[in-house]
Amino acid sequence: MIHPTAIIEPGAKIGSNVSIGAYSFVGANTVIGDGVTIQNGCEIGIHSVPGNDRPLVIGDGSMIRSMSIFYTGSSFGNRLVTGHRVTVREGVEAGQNLQLGTLTDLQGDCTIGDYVRMHSNVHIGKRSRIGNFVWIFPYVVLTNDPHPPSDVMKGVVLEDFAAVSTMAVILPGVVVKKGTLVGAHSLVSKSTNEDVLVAGNPAKEICPAAKIRLQDGTREPAYPWRRHFHRGYPVDVVNDWKAEFEV
Amino acid sequence: MIHPTAIIEPGAKIGSNVSIGAYSFVGANTVIGDGVTIQNGCEIGIHSVPGNDRPLVIGDGSMIRSMSIFYTGSSFGNRLVTGHRVTVREGVEAGQNLQLGTLTDLQGDCTIGDYVRMHSNVHIGKRSRIGNFVWIFPYVVLTNDPHPPSDVMKGVVLEDFAAVSTMAVILPGVVVKKGTLVGAHSLVSKSTNEDVLVAGNPAKEICPAAKIRLQDGTREPAYPWRRHFHRGYPVDVVNDWKAEFEV
Amino acid sequence: MIHPTAIIEPGAKIGSNVSIGAYSFVGANTVIGDGVTIQNGCEIGIHSVPGNDRPLVIGDGSMIRSMSIFYTGSSFGNRLVTGHRVTVREGVEAGQNLQLGTLTDLQGDCTIGDYVRMHSNVHIGKRSRIGNFVWIFPYVVLTNDPHPPSDVMKGVVLEDFAAVSTMAVILPGVVVKKGTLVGAHSLVSKSTNEDVLVAGNPAKEICPAAKIRLQDGTREPAYPWRRHFHRGYPVDVVNDWKAEFEV
Repeated sequence: MIHPTAIIEPGAKIGSNVSIGAYSFVGANTVIGDGVTIQNGCEIGIHSVPGNDRPLVIGDGSMIRSMSIFYTGSSFGNRLVTGHRVTVREGVEAGQNLQLGTLTDLQGDCTIGDYVRMHSNVHIGKRSRIGNFVWIFPYVVLTNDPHPPSDVMKGVVLEDFAAVSTMAVILPGVVVKKGTLVGAHSLVSKSTNEDVLVAGNPAKEICPAAKIRLQDGTREPAYPWRRHFHRGYPVDVVNDWKAEFEV
Repeated sequence: MIHPTAIIEPGAKIGSNVSIGAYSFVGANTVIGDGVTIQNGCEIGIHSVPGNDRPLVIGDGSMIRSMSIFYTGSSFGNRLVTGHRVTVREGVEAGQNLQLGTLTDLQGDCTIGDYVRMHSNVHIGKRSRIGNFVWIFPYVVLTNDPHPPSDVMKGVVLEDFAAVSTMAVILPGVVVKKGTLVGAHSLVSKSTNEDVLVAGNPAKEICPAAKIRLQDGTREPAYPWRRHFHRGYPVDVVNDWKAEFEV
Repeated sequence: MIHPTAIIEPGAKIGSNVSIGAYSFVGANTVIGDGVTIQNGCEIGIHSVPGNDRPLVIGDGSMIRSMSIFYTGSSFGNRLVTGHRVTVREGVEAGQNLQLGTLTDLQGDCTIGDYVRMHSNVHIGKRSRIGNFVWIFPYVVLTNDPHPPSDVMKGVVLEDFAAVSTMAVILPGVVVKKGTLVGAHSLVSKSTNEDVLVAGNPAKEICPAAKIRLQDGTREPAYPWRRHFHRGYPVDVVNDWKAEFEV
């Protein structure tokens, strides 16, 4: 299951039932869980910082698609799934069931909760703090420097159940509160309320998110999205959500 | 013409005069036309969906630049030309003479006409329908979920001769009508008229596109662009266009 | 220091103490300076234009990170540093100490001064002219066609010390003057004054950049940034800057 052209450095800890594709590299300071698939042309566990002795840890059952690059010094829970060509720098602490879309770029030094889903080409600046069940759509950027270039870094916070739509930019230090939806192509320059829609350049609060109606014929509230969207979440989580919205 | 390090799975149907570069992979369920060049480090015909028995078909005379990834289950007409690192998922039905710029990401399940040109880093969401002679410029995103995350998908339609400028986002279900120009960095939230300029966040109709003047000294109308821009189109097509605008 | 799987074409001129990684390619028409590191999976010196006899020149002490692609016909001064997966086409003339972030795409036919720093996923259109000490942040695009598609090209000019924030688009022919800051997610449609902040869609002049205060507790002016930000610049340059702002 390890392709003969794959290069595995001595010292790499590789679990059982691991598959490593052609022309991939796995570095010495790497801990790969059981049942992990690493596709072709990846670089896993690049050791770039002299004296950095923290390993890269990839949880059980993960799938890393081809041409992805991970540095050492980060930890991912079980069932990480990536698209192609993701780039992950040092210092990411991520929970379980994280999804990273194709071309997504984690700059490092950030925390990510459980069941977070990033779509293609997302850019997460250093110092970002991302809660649980957060959604981030294509070409979103979380920034960190309030007056670039400078030595000041103020990370963005995305609280649980926040959803940030395509090509939104979140400015440094902004907190997107629990359950809030950021509209597509918005520039979010100040912290939001909970469970609202913010949109525009600069973004303004438009309405409670619950006023947005599902376009599926029911016209039920589209938010909080956990009322109706359950695909890919475990049964116990979904049951909790169902209980929350049943009266 | 097939590099010794290239990995070709048994069953792949490869035409005559095909070149396949170093460290590239071609999967079993792939039909490569005559005279195709596949550069280094590509993955062509990844079979990701169990039970999906549709092949990847690449038309004659195509050029796939290095580090590109194509899944099975899509079909491309003759003379496809890609930049580097394009990613193409299942279910793309594309006509002839398609150009895909570097880093462009086709999410799959879409239709694309003839002579469509996408520049770098374009993202085409599922369910998109793109006509003939359409232009899409860098960092444009075609979206599909009207209230993300949800199970509702409404694709974008770009009609013939539409041109979508850099970093525009088109919202789900929007129809950009024939010959319309979308300005750079616009958010298009509703369907347009034909042959107009729409721009802004949110985009508004600014004027008939024909009011935009060429900055080449002639001050002739810049739109419809087929009045003056003929580079790369076949003679019979250009002759039709010339006839259309000669009175 | 040259990995056995690397492919080096005869004729490539390679300096002393050069490291070339696994599965990388270096073409014949390439001049690699002393002390250069080329990581894994790169393509350096692709010769794509028949009859183009200009080499690719990479200055001494450069670091090219993995999966990067450079065509022939460009020249980079000493100490070029790239992220991963940069793409560089023909005709770039760049000074020393250039930094190119991960996924950055130089379309070619442009000039770049000394000590320019581009962050991730920047797109530099043809005909751009970039001065010295310029900063360009993620997902910025410099465009060149005033009425796409057309045969007219008007490059963007970024003067010395300009800083262009995340996801700004600069329209064709615009001059961003010396020391000016472009705000995040802006669309810059006309040339600016010096040392101002422009922001919005379309961008307007907001205030002198010097009115922006450092959020580091000092509330000193954040611009010109060379007053306070010196990381990575040589001592003689920093001393000049210190002298400029000491009364």
